[in-house]
Amino acid sequence: MNALPSELLRQTAELSESATRPIPGSRKVHIEGSRADVRVPMREIALADTPSMFGAEKNAPFTTYDTSGPYTDPDYRVDLTAGLPALRARWIAERGDSEQLADFTSPFTRRHALAPSLADVRFPNIPKPRIAKSGMNISQMHYARRGIVTPEMEYIAIRENQRIDAIREAHLLKQHPGQSFGAAIPKLITPEFVRDEVARGRAIIPNNINHPESEPMIIGRNFLVKINANIGNSAVTSSIAEEVEKMVWAIRWGADTVMDLSTGKHIHETREWILRNSPVPIGTVPIYQALEKVGGVAEDLTWELFRDTLIEQAEQGVDYFTIHAGVRLPFIPLSARRVTGIVSRGGSIMAKWCLAHHRESFLYERFEDICDIMKAYDVAFSLGDGLRPGSIADANDPAQFAELDTLGELTQIAWKHDVQTMIEGPGHVPMHLIKENMERQLEKCGEAPFYTLGPLTTDIAPGYDHITSAIGAAMIGWYGTAMLCYVTPKEHLGLPDKQDVRDGIITYKLAAHAADLAKGHPGAQARDNALSKARFEFRWNDQFNLGLDPEKAKEFHDETLPKDAHKTAHFCSMCGPKFCSMKITQDVRDYAKEHGVGDEQALAEGMAEKAKEFREQGGEVYRAG
Amino acid sequence: MNALPSELLRQTAELSESATRPIPGSRKVHIEGSRADVRVPMREIALADTPSMFGAEKNAPFTTYDTSGPYTDPDYRVDLTAGLPALRARWIAERGDSEQLADFTSPFTRRHALAPSLADVRFPNIPKPRIAKSGMNISQMHYARRGIVTPEMEYIAIRENQRIDAIREAHLLKQHPGQSFGAAIPKLITPEFVRDEVARGRAIIPNNINHPESEPMIIGRNFLVKINANIGNSAVTSSIAEEVEKMVWAIRWGADTVMDLSTGKHIHETREWILRNSPVPIGTVPIYQALEKVGGVAEDLTWELFRDTLIEQAEQGVDYFTIHAGVRLPFIPLSARRVTGIVSRGGSIMAKWCLAHHRESFLYERFEDICDIMKAYDVAFSLGDGLRPGSIADANDPAQFAELDTLGELTQIAWKHDVQTMIEGPGHVPMHLIKENMERQLEKCGEAPFYTLGPLTTDIAPGYDHITSAIGAAMIGWYGTAMLCYVTPKEHLGLPDKQDVRDGIITYKLAAHAADLAKGHPGAQARDNALSKARFEFRWNDQFNLGLDPEKAKEFHDETLPKDAHKTAHFCSMCGPKFCSMKITQDVRDYAKEHGVGDEQALAEGMAEKAKEFREQGGEVYRAG
Repeated sequence: MNALPSELLRQTAELSESATRPIPGSRKVHIEGSRADVRVPMREIALADTPSMFGAEKNAPFTTYDTSGPYTDPDYRVDLTAGLPALRARWIAERGDSEQLADFTSPFTRRHALAPSLADVRFPNIPKPRIAKSGMNISQMHYARRGIVTPEMEYIAIRENQRIDAIREAHLLKQHPGQSFGAAIPKLITPEFVRDEVARGRAIIPNNINHPESEPMIIGRNFLVKINANIGNSAVTSSIAEEVEKMVWAIRWGADTVMDLSTGKHIHETREWILRNSPVPIGTVPIYQALEKVGGVAEDLTWELFRDTLIEQAEQGVDYFTIHAGVRLPFIPLSARRVTGIVSRGGSIMAKWCLAHHRESFLYERFEDICDIMKAYDVAFSLGDGLRPGSIADANDPAQFAELDTLGELTQIAWKHDVQTMIEGPGHVPMHLIKENMERQLEKCGEAPFYTLGPLTTDIAPGYDHITSAIGAAMIGWYGTAMLCYVTPKEHLGLPDKQDVRDGIITYKLAAHAADLAKGHPGAQARDNALSKARFEFRWNDQFNLGLDPEKAKEFHDETLPKDAHKTAHFCSMCGPKFCSMKITQDVRDYAKEHGVGDEQALAEGMAEKAKEFREQGGEVYRAG
Repeated sequence: MNALPSELLRQTAELSESATRPIPGSRKVHIEGSRADVRVPMREIALADTPSMFGAEKNAPFTTYDTSGPYTDPDYRVDLTAGLPALRARWIAERGDSEQLADFTSPFTRRHALAPSLADVRFPNIPKPRIAKSGMNISQMHYARRGIVTPEMEYIAIRENQRIDAIREAHLLKQHPGQSFGAAIPKLITPEFVRDEVARGRAIIPNNINHPESEPMIIGRNFLVKINANIGNSAVTSSIAEEVEKMVWAIRWGADTVMDLSTGKHIHETREWILRNSPVPIGTVPIYQALEKVGGVAEDLTWELFRDTLIEQAEQGVDYFTIHAGVRLPFIPLSARRVTGIVSRGGSIMAKWCLAHHRESFLYERFEDICDIMKAYDVAFSLGDGLRPGSIADANDPAQFAELDTLGELTQIAWKHDVQTMIEGPGHVPMHLIKENMERQLEKCGEAPFYTLGPLTTDIAPGYDHITSAIGAAMIGWYGTAMLCYVTPKEHLGLPDKQDVRDGIITYKLAAHAADLAKGHPGAQARDNALSKARFEFRWNDQFNLGLDPEKAKEFHDETLPKDAHKTAHFCSMCGPKFCSMKITQDVRDYAKEHGVGDEQALAEGMAEKAKEFREQGGEVYRAG
């Protein structure tokens, strides 16, 4: 074990209070599965009673999916230098199909583990890696296809349900039937359903055996729509401590996975810190680091160097790799007449390599070799869309679709190896061309999960691209995309800071939820109903706490009505006490209930007389207390 | 004329610099029509030349629609106490069908004009009102149906085209065919087309003859999608000077109309200040003021008092009135079992009145009397959706649709009087139920323009409802909604401040533009193309200036790369210099162009050899300057 150098220790000794303080009104609960070590964390939001003028009823607590890991558990003592507990270690070991290595396979990793110059930035407690035993395949897809329900699958079933039976009874007053475009979401998720979806390739469980700290989650069209947040330093800005803080910050707000897109200094070391402290799956784009290793000269990339990078990262525990294997030599000229050419970093690196060598991409040619690595650690593919459109003009063009079709071919190869696979999608697409993307992806890629960046529905709002893209993200999520890669307000302009990360995540959480609602995900509307009921009943704190960002909601309310008394006031600053429509409508409701009017018949018969009573009784049914 | 009291004078003597400073890279231009006093303002954005490594071409300036009025004209001297020039006064007078009154018709107005207690807040130069001559109808619809093309219509045709021919040639490299759902947008808007659309009721031109300061604009499905911003004080907060500043601020960012929803003190006086200084149409909800006049007791409202309020506001110059005439007595019980009942303020006021009196709404019963007032000043109807859903649970329910059908009936009555009419729409609606709203509105309301609030696509993100609603707004705009009423981040929580107004407007501008793109509005994609080309060529300032919010874009860029030199740098902080995909893709493009490769044939034949050349030539085609 290395002694941790003082500067980084100081920086990472603790996370900022803003990233770990308790979420208002919430407590961490755990739902136990069939064995004691399947303990699925959720967030339970306590709700106040309905005030007497609205009927004085109890409101059952509300349970939500919780991505925040132990950081929001007040019983957990954070120690970033130790990393998180290895939650899945026993499950992995029990299966008996993998083994711990004495040292890392990658020469690069071994050099970095020893280099004195890295002592300042190295994670102090690097675990030894595991690998599948010779000839074994340890992917969840492999188990699934052999009919095995893993603890990971059971964990996921419990997690996806979010105590739906209790919630449904207490809060799902009603729900609109959805329009699912062929998705088939059951009323209750069972472990067997999880297994079946993974076996069919319609869902993936990204969880590298070298990232046993991760809490199992699933990405697939028949589950809750997920979101990914990108973090990562670059040559220009950001440091390791900042990135770890950003990861914890991202999962606090709801990131289901985090991609570390670092391209600057200390990529390897930054990733180690993130992995050891991340309860969510971590994705990377290995070609970024490979390019760093050859000094930024794309032409100098080789399969051997790339292969070593894959192994290096797989043995650290990266859960999914973006591999731009669909950027084939013949497709590159298709991009030359585009308005914005190739905008994917990985795609453009490979395009440059292909042109410089006039050779087919080594990622494409070596795809089965890559599969062999993936299944030895259970790393999932995220097949990259290196030719995605970078502008509205370039949407749905021949380059993009040629690559998508190739990703479909590669999916079949990956599945032959039982390697879990998802497909990345665009990009910049006007609204009316979004559906074609989803339909083509489903058709060409055999229903493998789609994972899209936005898409951005216009190019003209730099500074607001979290919103231009949330429009497209919500729509494509509705159509069937399984995971939405967030875009922050800084997209196209600079590296996101913490506030940008929060804005991007909440924006994508609401887009994902809007998609769940439109698909008719069973129980999705329960949270909308609970929040709207709280809003109607002037339970201000419940309204804040049921929202995606309780802190922001409260802060906004406090700006105009800061006093605590206003948290139970029956109006807000928007309308003032006399004009509150919620207040007036309650009068209407009370009146209708009291007098038994519920249809036109009753109205026609009795209301003239009752109107008189209503006026005599004062008309105002209650007064703000 | 009153002497302006010192306190308000001090507050309104000048607008804040942030609301009137020049928009970066832009200058105000005017396009002259068939007569010298048809001078249509536009904003021209100067663009830099393409850098030599991208081909060193000139980039023609870009012209955009400009809602900001004279405030962004450096030649114009702002004097809020004098108000704006009466741009349309001559056109109105020339028609000879209206006359100036010696005094206001409304006793309320006359009292307010004299009350010493209001000297502190009264606009100092209140003009005398005009009214149609006895028996005349002065609505633009009336003219249109008689085949008259007014100067307003010509102004609008020029304005909507935004110099489209020049733009198309210089910037519309390509555009996707849209999907318009039955909209029929011509390639060039002619004055005759404007007339025809107004005659058919498919578009409205809100421009009260008592608001001659307004720059004519049009709201209709076959024109650019418009947005409205709400401002207004309440009993709890905000003042006159703040509201005027907010109006100028709102049009700077692109509000096409502004609704003054004040409910607090000095409603009448606030509105006068806003009207006299607003170059965009102003809408109101007259029932709010009527309620103030009866001390907030809904039951005490009378037709006579409401009628006087309509005349009071019509003679001030309000361009459109929200009238909740579809909240009929028999529909009210339909709302009793809702999760959030009646959430429209106007709707709940009328519901309370109907219940208390057990009488049909006087707005419904007196609808033809209201039409008589509207056509005497050319005030347009915005038929309010008082029963719109206030939660996902209540979307598309019987109460909402019963009202919508009634608004369709009322539209026919309004059209019998040649009164311009648009229809307000929801609200809170999950994505998959949005289209039904648009289709039903088109069918039941005879294609009268739809004007929707969002809709919000989920209830669970208080603090981010500008975004939950922008998703729905973009979609319903695509389906055919003519104007989108903005929602700010403070929705449900408090009264928006200036920053919220800006966030709400830019969010809605991008949603409206996304809708224009998806509908295939001719030329809409030109701005996306121009901005994307600037982005690709690292013309940073052009990218900022072509965006909807140049100041924010620049500010975000400056946070990580503040130096001026970075405005021409060929990378940004997101990726750093080595990883910039734009830079790499330009290599690909140059290579393809230089070597004549453009299809698979050429690739197959010549690239092996050329690849060698490429490497020998250095691979890096250019270096950051």
